[in-house]
Parts: sequence; C-alpha cells; structure tokens
Amino acid sequence: MTISTALSALSKVLGDGLSLSKADLDNHGRSESHFPLTPPDAVAYPTSTEQVAQIMRICSEHRCPVIGWGAGTSLEAQALATQGGVCIDFGKMKRVIEVNAADMDVRVQPGITREELNTELRATGLFFPVDPGANASLGGMAMTRASGTTAVRYGTMRDNVIGLEVVLADGRIIRTGTRARKSSAGYDLTSLFVGSEGTLGLITELTLRLHGQPQAVSTAVCAFDTIDAAVAAVTETIQIGIPMARIEFIDAATALAVNAYSKADLPALPHLLVEFHGSDQGVAEQVDLFSVIAKDHGATGLQWATKAEDRSRLWEMRHKAYWAILASRPGSRAIVTDVCVPISQLARAVAETQADIAASGLPAPILGHVGDGNFHAILLMDDTNPAEREIAKDLSHRMAERALALGGTITGEHGIGSGKLGYMQAEHGDAWEIMGLLKNSLDPLGLMNPGKLIKSP
Amino acid sequence: MTISTALSALSKVLGDGLSLSKADLDNHGRSESHFPLTPPDAVAYPTSTEQVAQIMRICSEHRCPVIGWGAGTSLEAQALATQGGVCIDFGKMKRVIEVNAADMDVRVQPGITREELNTELRATGLFFPVDPGANASLGGMAMTRASGTTAVRYGTMRDNVIGLEVVLADGRIIRTGTRARKSSAGYDLTSLFVGSEGTLGLITELTLRLHGQPQAVSTAVCAFDTIDAAVAAVTETIQIGIPMARIEFIDAATALAVNAYSKADLPALPHLLVEFHGSDQGVAEQVDLFSVIAKDHGATGLQWATKAEDRSRLWEMRHKAYWAILASRPGSRAIVTDVCVPISQLARAVAETQADIAASGLPAPILGHVGDGNFHAILLMDDTNPAEREIAKDLSHRMAERALALGGTITGEHGIGSGKLGYMQAEHGDAWEIMGLLKNSLDPLGLMNPGKLIKSP
Repeated sequence: MTISTALSALSKVLGDGLSLSKADLDNHGRSESHFPLTPPDAVAYPTSTEQVAQIMRICSEHRCPVIGWGAGTSLEAQALATQGGVCIDFGKMKRVIEVNAADMDVRVQPGITREELNTELRATGLFFPVDPGANASLGGMAMTRASGTTAVRYGTMRDNVIGLEVVLADGRIIRTGTRARKSSAGYDLTSLFVGSEGTLGLITELTLRLHGQPQAVSTAVCAFDTIDAAVAAVTETIQIGIPMARIEFIDAATALAVNAYSKADLPALPHLLVEFHGSDQGVAEQVDLFSVIAKDHGATGLQWATKAEDRSRLWEMRHKAYWAILASRPGSRAIVTDVCVPISQLARAVAETQADIAASGLPAPILGHVGDGNFHAILLMDDTNPAEREIAKDLSHRMAERALALGGTITGEHGIGSGKLGYMQAEHGDAWEIMGLLKNSLDPLGLMNPGKLIKSP
Repeated sequence: MTISTALSALSKVLGDGLSLSKADLDNHGRSESHFPLTPPDAVAYPTSTEQVAQIMRICSEHRCPVIGWGAGTSLEAQALATQGGVCIDFGKMKRVIEVNAADMDVRVQPGITREELNTELRATGLFFPVDPGANASLGGMAMTRASGTTAVRYGTMRDNVIGLEVVLADGRIIRTGTRARKSSAGYDLTSLFVGSEGTLGLITELTLRLHGQPQAVSTAVCAFDTIDAAVAAVTETIQIGIPMARIEFIDAATALAVNAYSKADLPALPHLLVEFHGSDQGVAEQVDLFSVIAKDHGATGLQWATKAEDRSRLWEMRHKAYWAILASRPGSRAIVTDVCVPISQLARAVAETQADIAASGLPAPILGHVGDGNFHAILLMDDTNPAEREIAKDLSHRMAERALALGGTITGEHGIGSGKLGYMQAEHGDAWEIMGLLKNSLDPLGLMNPGKLIKSP
C-alpha cells in the first residue's frame, strides 16, 4: 500500500484521465506565490462526482494523499502536494448544472471559474459577486473561504455558498444544505467545508447564492495626502452605514506600479477606489454622502465613472495590481501576505506595517479590501538573496503578530495552507486542537491535503 | 459514576448554585410547545465561565448529562432533560462585557435576552437585529441558529455571531473567531457551534455583530384577497431586490385571532406586514416600489406607519400572534411547526399546507417570515384527545415532507431538538451520520444534551 500501487490502480480506472507527464506534474507543482516547485506524483482529471468517489476509494485503500486543484491561484501553498500523492484537477468538471433565476441561486461544478460563471449568467440579470481578483475556480474559492473586493457588500464565500456536494475521504458522497435560504436543521456542515482547504473532503458541486445586477453602478478613484486620511475616510463611510459595494485601498507605491503597468497617471499618493450599487436614486445619494466624507479628509481628484467601460478599466487596473507590483522590481518574487483587523484598528495596523516595511528597506506595496479591515503587503524579494528572503519572512511574521495583537486574524482571505501554519496556535489556542479532532473524525488516515491547516499529528 | 454522585460533587462546589427544589426542576422541565413535563435532576446556576468548566469536568467524570438553559423558549424540546442530568441555567450570566461602537460589535454573556441587550444598546445608536419573536437568550438563540422577522435583511444568528467562547465536554475552554469581520484562518468553528443545540459544548460568551439604528423606518400592513396574491407580492418584492427589513405573512385565521387578542380590526383575510429601514430617501423609494407591487396584487387597506409607537403596536401584535392563536381555542395546546422552502416554491407550499389543514378539520393558523421562504403552522389540539394529537402530528409530518419535496428544509429556525429527529435522515442522508462523527469527536461520552439533533448511537 503505497502511492505507486495507488497510481497503478488509478490508471486502470482513469486511463487517459491520469497523467504522469513531467510537464503536467510541474504545472501542478507551481504556486502563484513564493513556494518552491512541488509536483505531485500524478494528476487525475475526473469528469464526474462518481469518478471522484472512485479515486478517493482507491487512494484510501492504498493510503495515498489527495490534493484538490482548481485554477492554481491559491497563495499559501494550499494546492501543493507537499507530501506527494495525487492532485485532482477539476478542469473537466466546469458545468453550470442549473440556474434558478426565481430563487437567485445556481448549481455548478467546482472547476468553473468566477469569470466563466458570470459570463454564463449574463443574460439572466443575475451575477455572482465574490471577486478575489484572480480568476479562481469556484471550488477553490469555497475551499479557501475567499472574498475580495465586493465582500464589504455581498459577503465572502461563507455567505454565498448555500450548499455543497462533497466526496469524503472514504469515497462517500454527501450533500450539505438545501435550496432554502436558511435552516436550523442540524450542524452547519456547509460552513465547515467552506474554508477547509481540501482537508476534510473534495467539493464536487456547489449551490451558490446569486444577486441581481444593480440598476445603477458608480465608481470613483481619489487620492489622499496620507494613509491615515484615506483610512479615516473608509472608517467613517462604514460607520455611517453607506452600503459600499467596494472600497479598496492602494498605497503610493502601488499607485506608481499601476501607472507603469496599466498606463495610468495616478499621483504618487495613497488612493481609495470605491463603487456603489443600487437604484439610480440610491446610488446618487451614496455618491453624495461619500464625496462629502472624502473631501472632509482631503481627497483630491475625485472623479465618478458610471460608464461600464470606464469602470472596467479601473477594476482591471486594480485586479492587475499584483502583477504591476511584481513587474516593478524585475526578477523578484513575492511573499503576498494578508491580515484582517477590526475596522477601528485598521489605521494603526496599516501605519505600523508601513513603518516596519520602510525600516526594512524592502519594496513592499500595501493594498487591500479595507472596508473589511483586510489588507495585503506584497513583499518583493530577490529570491536568490537569502538575506532578503529572511527580511520578507520577518515582515510577514510581524504583520500576523500585529493583527493578532489588535484583535484581528492572521489571514482575511488567503487561508493557511502550509504558509501560515506557524501562526495557527497563536490565533486559536486550544481551538486549533479541536480542528484536529474534527479532521481526524472525517479523515482518520490523514490523506486529505496532508500538511495543510491542521497541526501535524 | 452516576447522576447522583455527580450531584453530590456539584453541590460541594456550587453550594446554593445547585438547586434540587421541585419547583425549580419543574420550571426547567417545561416547554413553550407541546412536550410533556421533563424535569432535570438538578439545576445549576453558574456565575462564570470557570464555573461552567468546573461543572463540565465533574459531569464528565461522573458521566452525567448536561443540558443548557437560556430563557426556555425553544420549541422542539431542545432544553428538556430527556435523559435526565443537570440543567445549566445561564440566568446569572447576563452581562454585557464590552461594546465596541466603532467596530459595531458587542461581547455578551449567554444568559442576556435580546430585549435586555437592545435596552442596554439604546444610547449607542446601534442595535442587535435578530428577532425570533420570543424574548430569547442570546446563548439560546445562537444554539438554535434562530432568526425571525428581520432575517430577510440582517441575516440569522449564523450571520450575526462573530465569535464564541465555548466550554467543551471535558471542561476545556476554547475561543472561536476574532473581532475581524472575516477570516480564512482554519475551520469555521463559530458556525459549527451556532445551531448545535448544546450537543457539542456550552456557549459562555458571544461576540455579536451590531447594526446602526436606521435613520428612517416605515411599516405597513395590508390585506390580500388570497394567500396566492400575498405570496406573489412577496416573491416579486424580493426578486426586484427591494431591501425589506421585515416581510411577514399572517393568514385569515391568524388575523381573526389577533383581532380578539390585541384589540385590532383586521379584515378576515391574509395579510402582509412589512417594514423598510434606511435613509429618508431610500425608505421613501422602497415604500413607493412596494406600494405599486402590493396594489398590483390587489392589496387593500395599505397604510404606512412611521411613528415609533404605531410601529411598536403593529409588531407587538405580530409577536403576540402565537399567544393570540393559543387563546383562540381555550384549553388547547399547540404543535408549532416551521419549514422553509425556496421562495419560488413558497406559494405552492403554503397553499398545499392550507388545503391539508382545511381537510383535517383542525384549527391551524399559518404565519411566517415569508421573505425567507419560512412559515409556521400553529396546530391547535385538545391535548386530552389522542385523535387530535395524531391529526396534528400527521399535518406536521406532511409539512416537513412537503418542504423536502420542494427543495427546502424541515426547519427554518426552530431547530431539531428531539421533536424533529425523525426527519433528519430524510433531509441529510449520509450527512446526518457525519454530524454524528463530529459530535463523537468532541463529546465521546455523549453527555452534551443527549437525545437531541444526532442519531442515537
């Protein structure tokens, strides 16, 4: 009973659906972040839930680790086969199974990406709002409890996954949730699997909540003299209850990187990018309220875009910020780290982080979904220079510690994987051990994405 | 190792904080619903988390069942000691520990009721929106995953509990969640405990999300010729995205009961009670939109109340509907059953239920939080007449089956307790067994509220 006996059993069942080619393995061993190449022993391409169950039964019998793969956009090594085994690529399970327009929900297979889903939904007047930036798969987004720019209005994957079909470690197939909008019928298994990073089971189907495309959308960008002023504008906007659809922060370094990459001409200052959704009247009212707050905090260059193409340009610029920042230091790699703090602590958390970065000498732009208290630092390092790597790791380490000290969390949306395992004890204390007990009850052999999220046994 | 040895150990530790008086036991053996008197062996009144942990360690050592008690308002026997043991009454743990106005959250002890909390919050401009009708304790509301009239706008307890302190079966104290508004740091333990009905641990502290008191509030009641017309108005209101704060349905029988009990003069027709929250402008827009929809569906008597005292009168009438219905058949008891279906199936579910009730001959008014697809039937029976009890049980049974057949859930907000155990297999299939595995991993001795929610081992 080994990985290699599992592979021969799998290849009999899957035929062409099991790949051992080096190119394929390498493609599934890469991360968008700074982790070293970690290829799995094989890549399986199931086409149905039943096939996923069959794979799990075989892997379970042969004690072979299993790692799920969506679009490969995770940032904390969640999809890397750090203990070897079979990578299950959901690229052939991308169907929209059923759109229930009247109930504003949709059933999809896990491999479909959020952009693909929204393209399919276009004619319905509905959309799926969760937007982590990357064109991630819905299965991956659920497993990471992803969020992004629109969470401040529409919530995270926690709020937008209504139900799941899951294949468990022993190959059993279960369904969680119903299409009802709420339920008190037993444990909230849906929420347990959302954010579990493939350590409890594999998602083979998701029922997602949809939202009506807003009648009116208005987007703006504006500059502030200081980070404090920008963050104060965010805090005030939230506290008076303006229902922003997006409120994003980029610091001066990000603005400069974006200028170079996306041919923009933002001043070298901190900026907010905001968007409002609603009725014509509602959006007009929100725009007025926000404009007053922004100007009170010294905002300059405030311009509103209501045309779709102007808005798209702005958000494309924002979504490409990560690549813009990478390109700002050619040849560098990045530790992309994220934390989330209570909104009252956001100004302090960002200011202290920026001071820490400045003292380190490393280029490390800051940006984030500040309406949630969530921000990222992109720590650019010359990967061949071990000293820089240490500096970057130390900065990331202090960001996590700072977030905890301010009542926050070590990750707002990127998850744990293996990258943030070292902070789980500090955040959760004994509750981390409880996670281990739960894991052990569903995956007693420890085959589901081993080495991630959970304390090593 | 028995319940009685546990009681002597507990009495040494708790002194006066452990009661064996018959009156006390009987008070903790009653349910607001139709279940027979089921007194526990003792009632403990802890005053601190540490004391709850001490109780759990003793009960664990002596294999004594433990049942949590908040305000005793659960409807499916959740708080009844069906296998004996110690009832832990949180009536001496009712403090508001900390209000964070800037972050719009609050930390409370589990025994405080929602009305007490909102009284304490009044000066802050914030409120806690979840409103199940009864003046339940926050700990109990979390454990039942309660919701009620405002869930359509503000969500259920699932959405409004940010973090918990929990005492586990072995006396360990853990904390789940942080004060950050979102996190991807590991399993969502908060969501696992919310709705677990005391079967996994006891909540000793909650961090709750608060909301700003709306600038403007407008409330209305209106009558419809048919249930179908009323439900169609609800469906359309939701589908065009009007953000109602409340949208409640009462049928003609409920309207008559309310008239007699609350000195109202509603026509003998189905009604909707609606409320909108927002800015002056926003509420005015919503009122206009809803008025058009309601009139399109033949609504009559539509009158808007904006004064606080008029609104209070309306919601008090709604909140007392259960007592009004009970009083409409003197001497009767009620099976209060609740189901929740996708909104597209609501009209059918209500119509079929009403036809079923009419055929049965039993008086059974229907009312509900229809914006969520959630409705209740109050099945009035002469408890001394076994035939009527059977009829009521059969009606309740068919309501659950009908909800499942329409893609819904056997309970939207009342929970499982022992009352709805019989439908768990039908709703969850193998996932119910998974709940059992999770339960067993945290409570291997089966002492936490045994006989509730989980399949008997």
